[in-house]
Amino acid sequence: MASKVTPISGFQEWLPTERIAEQYFLDTIREVFELHGFASVNTRSVESVERLSSQGEDADKEIYAVRRLAAPADEQAEPTLGLHFDMTVPFARYVLENAGKLTFPFRRYQIQQAWRGERPQRGRYREFIQADIDIVDAGELPAHYEAELLLVIADVFARLPVGDYTIHVNNRKICEGFYLGLGIDDVIGTLRIVDKLDKIGPQKVAELLVANGLTDEQAKQCLALAEINSPDGSFVERVRALGVEHPTLDEGLAHLESVIATAAEHAPGVAIADLRIARGLDYYTGTVYETMLERDPGYGSICSGGRYDSLATDGKRTYPGVGISIGVSRLLGLLIGEEGLTASRETPVAVLVAVNDEDSRAESTRIATALRSRGIATLVAPKAAKFGKQIQFADRRGIPFVWFPGAGEDGSDQVKDIRSGQQSAADRSSWTPPQADLRPSLVSPTTD
Amino acid sequence: MASKVTPISGFQEWLPTERIAEQYFLDTIREVFELHGFASVNTRSVESVERLSSQGEDADKEIYAVRRLAAPADEQAEPTLGLHFDMTVPFARYVLENAGKLTFPFRRYQIQQAWRGERPQRGRYREFIQADIDIVDAGELPAHYEAELLLVIADVFARLPVGDYTIHVNNRKICEGFYLGLGIDDVIGTLRIVDKLDKIGPQKVAELLVANGLTDEQAKQCLALAEINSPDGSFVERVRALGVEHPTLDEGLAHLESVIATAAEHAPGVAIADLRIARGLDYYTGTVYETMLERDPGYGSICSGGRYDSLATDGKRTYPGVGISIGVSRLLGLLIGEEGLTASRETPVAVLVAVNDEDSRAESTRIATALRSRGIATLVAPKAAKFGKQIQFADRRGIPFVWFPGAGEDGSDQVKDIRSGQQSAADRSSWTPPQADLRPSLVSPTTD
Repeated sequence: MASKVTPISGFQEWLPTERIAEQYFLDTIREVFELHGFASVNTRSVESVERLSSQGEDADKEIYAVRRLAAPADEQAEPTLGLHFDMTVPFARYVLENAGKLTFPFRRYQIQQAWRGERPQRGRYREFIQADIDIVDAGELPAHYEAELLLVIADVFARLPVGDYTIHVNNRKICEGFYLGLGIDDVIGTLRIVDKLDKIGPQKVAELLVANGLTDEQAKQCLALAEINSPDGSFVERVRALGVEHPTLDEGLAHLESVIATAAEHAPGVAIADLRIARGLDYYTGTVYETMLERDPGYGSICSGGRYDSLATDGKRTYPGVGISIGVSRLLGLLIGEEGLTASRETPVAVLVAVNDEDSRAESTRIATALRSRGIATLVAPKAAKFGKQIQFADRRGIPFVWFPGAGEDGSDQVKDIRSGQQSAADRSSWTPPQADLRPSLVSPTTD
Repeated sequence: MASKVTPISGFQEWLPTERIAEQYFLDTIREVFELHGFASVNTRSVESVERLSSQGEDADKEIYAVRRLAAPADEQAEPTLGLHFDMTVPFARYVLENAGKLTFPFRRYQIQQAWRGERPQRGRYREFIQADIDIVDAGELPAHYEAELLLVIADVFARLPVGDYTIHVNNRKICEGFYLGLGIDDVIGTLRIVDKLDKIGPQKVAELLVANGLTDEQAKQCLALAEINSPDGSFVERVRALGVEHPTLDEGLAHLESVIATAAEHAPGVAIADLRIARGLDYYTGTVYETMLERDPGYGSICSGGRYDSLATDGKRTYPGVGISIGVSRLLGLLIGEEGLTASRETPVAVLVAVNDEDSRAESTRIATALRSRGIATLVAPKAAKFGKQIQFADRRGIPFVWFPGAGEDGSDQVKDIRSGQQSAADRSSWTPPQADLRPSLVSPTTD
């Protein structure tokens, strides 16, 4: 295999130390998801293209189709497969396929890769990892889940060095009711235009709204609504002050007020009501979330989702759900890729067992086995080189301890902390490294 | 999304309880790999088709090509991407791409999905998980690693309910040297025919060998060699008794004898020398492994690999390696899919906190937070239903404990083991479930 080796744009790979930092994130996310009672589901990587492309006009362009290189001609008629571009569409299919075997309300987490054939750019990859939680129920879904998901995410980010962040929450019913109360018929069209506010600014949005059939006054009111945000329930009063009335608006306001109040009690400072948040995807019907890092809001949302009432339906039964997804690859593209977050060493190994000579390799292996049986990651030196070379081998990899079989004057084993140079007698059946050295830890660029 | 939901042949998905059993396997494999000093690497899912298809004529047919559904016409000329069909080829590419940033000898594990477009059948999937370890060095690779990998696998399987198994080990140099000593020129051709022994039997193999230019006597000798196996070094004498001599044969015998001796010392009963093992892939150059389950050897190898001396080369430098791969999906297709191995419950949750009435949901949430902060997976009941219904909710999911806020006569919390019915006062800041109930455990069909 001597052909040229080239990276493929949009397909990120980490070096071993970076991968250990990534694993720390993935392990923590999984741990918190499980503590909050979510069960793991992994779905196959492929869905029928038909199912994938039913999700909106934009999705279509980004789908990666998958076909056997040597598919015979008669297979061309088969339904084409595509790689999934998120976890929500496959999960909705999984729920329908297994509805009779699942217990509802069903809480699942799903940490997997997804693929989108969009143009690679900062924070956007063609292959990426997402970590999703969703709660679906059969028939009715209690509203308190929409606040609960915020608390799970707050618990995850409390354990990871992500820096300051804010979860922006809205409820689509507020926009819908407000627009209807203003006498606007094209709710979805209006929502899509207002969604461009961050990109094109209020002036352009107003122009587009008027071009779409709104009066100047209606457009002004839509923009006034989108400008409202608050970390508490005060947004309700500000919406009321705009003087628009509609039962759907009342419903949305009460709902968002309750979500924000629950978040403020259990995870203060994490969430704000932000009435400009819309989310592009058509299937959201209630609460929607987007999460921005305070130090770089323009980087894009690192955790998004919302409530969907009719994504999973088999025609007879409907399974409403609410979900939120951490964009792990996007988040780590910034933290590891740009900011230099890393791990304390490139290997899980805490102890290198030296080899005195090749004839005594078996003895070094027995020591390693004894340490491993107590959960200490241990490596036996590859060659019976001079001890200086063996210590160098450990040092290059960041392995903190080297074990010398029978090195004591009385023939006992000795262990050396190669950072301090301190060496002392050690018993293979009881010695343990300090807790902080047992596994690699995260190293932030600012605290390094 | 009301379109028809159909499984896709060869793409396995588990229900939540089965997935917990799979996670137990994946976690254990990872833990042991790390204890033995392997660092995690994940490679992107795609490689250039050119690289993938350079691995032999069979590989070609099985590759899944990947292309953007809406790729513009001018993109058709780009090199086509394909999903990787194993971890070895992507890892060899990763080593070449990052050689300057890796520390050699480099030990990595890689637990990922792979895809092969072959006909789905028992134990063979189109999407499957493999768990690989490899050790590569720059220039020279010490031989003791070939024995070490066996010990890692033995350590993995000692912690999992896989049943009795045997790792069959051979060294390609034995076959090569033996064939050359017999005066056979076409070593690879002969090896490929002998590799069919299990499928077509000795009679047919002899016929094919003769058709390929061997004398009857040469064919008889090749079969005699393939029939030799032993759990110790006695195979050497039996090969010698066949009267064939060649320096490469001597080298291979000495090498295999040493691997078997090391395995017998550190993991007795696990490995046997079996001179019929050849492995289909061309890139193996020394030791080769295959692992059979005693209760169903015909199911195929669940753990295979070998030494490759020139898979990773950039023309200037060569990185010889040795690797072994657990076929996780194949193994679990038997254990979970056919034999009924499962988990003790369908959720990580150990405790359900009851809700007295919707107004006190916040109090139940605070209790859950206190339990989670001490590592106990906890769920708050979805509705303030009658306690009987809330207990039923836990029972249906296999959740062992239900927590009743303020249920004691003195207003203290109470916790009930719903299996025994025993209920007692409990402090949210100190109570813990028995270790065996903290997480779901594996349940074997035979011990159930």
